[in-house]
Amino acid sequence: MTEGVKTIYIVTIKCPNRPGIVAGISHGLAELGANITEAQQFDETESRQFFMRVVFEIQDGTTDRSVLEQEFMRLAHEFDMSWSLTTTARRPRVLILVSRFDHCLVDLLYRWRIGELAIDPVGIISNHPRDVYKNLDFGSIPFHYLPITPDTKPAQEARILQIMDDSRAELVVLARYMQILSNDMSHRLSGRCINIHHSFLPGFKGARPYHQAFARGVKLIGATAHYVTSDLDEGPIIEQDVERISHADTPDDLVRKGRDIERRVLARAVRYHIERRTIITGHKTIVFTS
Amino acid sequence: MTEGVKTIYIVTIKCPNRPGIVAGISHGLAELGANITEAQQFDETESRQFFMRVVFEIQDGTTDRSVLEQEFMRLAHEFDMSWSLTTTARRPRVLILVSRFDHCLVDLLYRWRIGELAIDPVGIISNHPRDVYKNLDFGSIPFHYLPITPDTKPAQEARILQIMDDSRAELVVLARYMQILSNDMSHRLSGRCINIHHSFLPGFKGARPYHQAFARGVKLIGATAHYVTSDLDEGPIIEQDVERISHADTPDDLVRKGRDIERRVLARAVRYHIERRTIITGHKTIVFTS
Amino acid sequence: MTEGVKTIYIVTIKCPNRPGIVAGISHGLAELGANITEAQQFDETESRQFFMRVVFEIQDGTTDRSVLEQEFMRLAHEFDMSWSLTTTARRPRVLILVSRFDHCLVDLLYRWRIGELAIDPVGIISNHPRDVYKNLDFGSIPFHYLPITPDTKPAQEARILQIMDDSRAELVVLARYMQILSNDMSHRLSGRCINIHHSFLPGFKGARPYHQAFARGVKLIGATAHYVTSDLDEGPIIEQDVERISHADTPDDLVRKGRDIERRVLARAVRYHIERRTIITGHKTIVFTS
Amino acid sequence: MTEGVKTIYIVTIKCPNRPGIVAGISHGLAELGANITEAQQFDETESRQFFMRVVFEIQDGTTDRSVLEQEFMRLAHEFDMSWSLTTTARRPRVLILVSRFDHCLVDLLYRWRIGELAIDPVGIISNHPRDVYKNLDFGSIPFHYLPITPDTKPAQEARILQIMDDSRAELVVLARYMQILSNDMSHRLSGRCINIHHSFLPGFKGARPYHQAFARGVKLIGATAHYVTSDLDEGPIIEQDVERISHADTPDDLVRKGRDIERRVLARAVRYHIERRTIITGHKTIVFTS
Repeated sequence: MTEGVKTIYIVTIKCPNRPGIVAGISHGLAELGANITEAQQFDETESRQFFMRVVFEIQDGTTDRSVLEQEFMRLAHEFDMSWSLTTTARRPRVLILVSRFDHCLVDLLYRWRIGELAIDPVGIISNHPRDVYKNLDFGSIPFHYLPITPDTKPAQEARILQIMDDSRAELVVLARYMQILSNDMSHRLSGRCINIHHSFLPGFKGARPYHQAFARGVKLIGATAHYVTSDLDEGPIIEQDVERISHADTPDDLVRKGRDIERRVLARAVRYHIERRTIITGHKTIVFTS
Repeated sequence: MTEGVKTIYIVTIKCPNRPGIVAGISHGLAELGANITEAQQFDETESRQFFMRVVFEIQDGTTDRSVLEQEFMRLAHEFDMSWSLTTTARRPRVLILVSRFDHCLVDLLYRWRIGELAIDPVGIISNHPRDVYKNLDFGSIPFHYLPITPDTKPAQEARILQIMDDSRAELVVLARYMQILSNDMSHRLSGRCINIHHSFLPGFKGARPYHQAFARGVKLIGATAHYVTSDLDEGPIIEQDVERISHADTPDDLVRKGRDIERRVLARAVRYHIERRTIITGHKTIVFTS
Repeated sequence: MTEGVKTIYIVTIKCPNRPGIVAGISHGLAELGANITEAQQFDETESRQFFMRVVFEIQDGTTDRSVLEQEFMRLAHEFDMSWSLTTTARRPRVLILVSRFDHCLVDLLYRWRIGELAIDPVGIISNHPRDVYKNLDFGSIPFHYLPITPDTKPAQEARILQIMDDSRAELVVLARYMQILSNDMSHRLSGRCINIHHSFLPGFKGARPYHQAFARGVKLIGATAHYVTSDLDEGPIIEQDVERISHADTPDDLVRKGRDIERRVLARAVRYHIERRTIITGHKTIVFTS
Repeated sequence: MTEGVKTIYIVTIKCPNRPGIVAGISHGLAELGANITEAQQFDETESRQFFMRVVFEIQDGTTDRSVLEQEFMRLAHEFDMSWSLTTTARRPRVLILVSRFDHCLVDLLYRWRIGELAIDPVGIISNHPRDVYKNLDFGSIPFHYLPITPDTKPAQEARILQIMDDSRAELVVLARYMQILSNDMSHRLSGRCINIHHSFLPGFKGARPYHQAFARGVKLIGATAHYVTSDLDEGPIIEQDVERISHADTPDDLVRKGRDIERRVLARAVRYHIERRTIITGHKTIVFTS
């Protein structure tokens, strides 16, 4: 046992609400020598469900992970609870899909390189060739060029799923990937795929949202990061932000301002996801921000 | 002639874009001894229209208003220009319509009382009785109780128009007036009536927008002040703003946060209007903010 | 016992950090039949202190408050813990101090009247006479006119303290009260007095902050709500907000924009305080926002 | 003469305020066949100075630049006016200085590469070796490694000035360059050097502002882009922005959130500068935003 070295765990749980859950979990963790450093909870009134995220640390060499898992299995049985346990040491394997506009891709890779975003990028897929990103250093991240036509779409989507499998990707990030996923593909990615939509949803769904915003004369534009579901642009929202515009802003100005909003909204959403701050409930996302 | 006393004029103009407009106007004003203190312009590319707002001051006793008007008539002829001239000394006569929720009314009256909003309130109309606002001091502003049922709606709308005429109101402010105006009424008020909608349009049109926002799980809520047109919730937007919410906010929390957004958005829109900072162009509003 | 009627309690605690605190508290509450509906915690690394706010409900007729208090005394002994228990039914008694500018006062009273702010206003003190606020309906709230000169300051501060005692006020809100409190007075009010400073602290301490901001040419102005301590403008910050300004804004424009910021920042701070969301730690305030 | 090809000019002017300036300039431009597409003006009350930025287009082959310049010389004589004329075709030559943290550098280069920022980067200077930025493609932009110790500072500053001269750089951007410039150097760069300070000035001047912000317990952090003057952190502010933080944010979290603020604030300031939207007046910057 190495004195002082600790493993940091994150557990998220979901169960029907009733008295005693927090007591049960915190007691169980205390018995195993865990020190809770963060805990956030939410009682959803409509669904009568209880959600919780707990960060705790355990001195290495004291309690094995398998013992922890046994305890959570016991608690799951007691409280009819679903749960998910991870450690901050393990970096989620992430596959990034992109089209011609690479501002979100560049931003995610930068945050990863400087250690801000604790992901393990296992692949970049684009419907444009590598040459489009010639100024970008992808390091050892495999790049896949998968051009898509209406005819090749089913085959290319199958290849994307294959790449996911081969790379054991846990999360797919659509970083301004401008191909509409098929219903089947969306369904398969449900809950493990984050998309950035370049409007403040539910306003301006569909194509060319900045041009729609310009035509409507709104005074703020925004971007929305959401989980992908089979219902396009209707997935559970993770994060949104806006910036002020004026009548003098052209559609090009909106696109320019939009890039800044999109990249920061997507980066936040990815961080929330990998830090296990998000829990999907129905059409919504609980986000336990710090 | 009183030495040093000046009249401050605001003129807004609109004409087809072509070279020489600014030169023509500024030359004409200079010839008449006007000193331009603010000028804002906008060339709308799609419509090829030119819009301008000019604030200028004239020493009292030097140039009469009628001389100014003659000059603008001459310019209007030369540039095929529509124009509107006012002085900051003249306070627009404003009629305020309200329903049970009085936060926007209270806010507008407060801003008027402390001299922030240079309006002349000529009437308050509500579909609820005076007693609902018993804590509010309306001073000498006439209060009109006009309860509305489906049957009485046409008659009551006629009375509202009559009150507008009698009070010579130039602007009607729907300060959370929860009655849907008839098409005919909306049409008559077009361009001289500002409504506050309690959502970030075009999201969540129609009734109970905060409940819609709650159901959709958005991460920001907003409010929109717009000119009333016969197309409900589709009028030219003047001002919008938002605040951050989370999954933990109940519909009641959204209503509470919304009140703060609504009152500041409506107050800004009214100020922009009375300071002649707004010009409607098609479905949009040009807003020359300071 | 009335079926279904519940009392909602809020407890805040503070103790040295160590494993088992959450387990101890939640177990103790579960044993007494309490259902935890909200819980927020914070481990302060520097001070090694643990802070927690728990909202829980208890079926009326099951567990008496005295039993709860015994349990918290037991926990306090076990964990070396200070704690504070209240119910949401009890409205804190609040004394409001104001000077000539009444926008914060008007705002607080409005929020109280419509039930947004669950306070019990027990007095309004001003160094200006009642007539200054002649448009305001204070209802049954006693108004105290305490003009202050350098000579009368000690006596008038003594009267303020007397009014606090007599009215059993738990919180004093300086709602743009423009008299500088003496060190002794500040010291006595420490932790139970909230001030709104009309700048984004620590920028522009002291007098005429909007004029300072204008002179410095900043691009955003703000307001700061903080607990009063004997160190003027250095008290623990509860809430801050800002708005954008430009070179074209005059000092009067800053004052106007500032009013909107001040009133919303102060109202939020008061709400956080009365909902027991704030805990002072050293020079800072922990704020458990929802 | 090529039919339809236009040159777009930007002129900024400054002169004592008096009637007739706008008329004189717009008349002069109209006479020369210029079409004004944007015009912004500001009357500074304290200094009684008038400032204006005019964007106009001239059909190629009609009026030579030398003719334009003669007209502005004539106007300058008439109105005691200083002026500066440029075309949007000419990209300002920019030298970027950076230290270890490269987020602002990466951001500026990205905006330049995609055509958002119309600059011509003529050099990158760092006090760290090229290897620190090994993932970055600098293309053909020369990189200069100028390590600095107290002893070598004067010599290295001389080299920076030499590189400025050799590269004919018009603007120096301190993109988180962590060396304090000497008074002499600051003085020489006055008005043509933009710095990003990682705090919301005037709060938290000097070193380690995020740690200062953490210690003070503020609820928003910010960044400030300003022109460099010999008075450190006191130069005319161009742009500022903020983000919300909480008690739970560690100094590392502040640094992370700060990176996002810094890069967008600096990029806006650089864009305002190169689009001639900024005019320094005393300790302030007029910024004619769109």
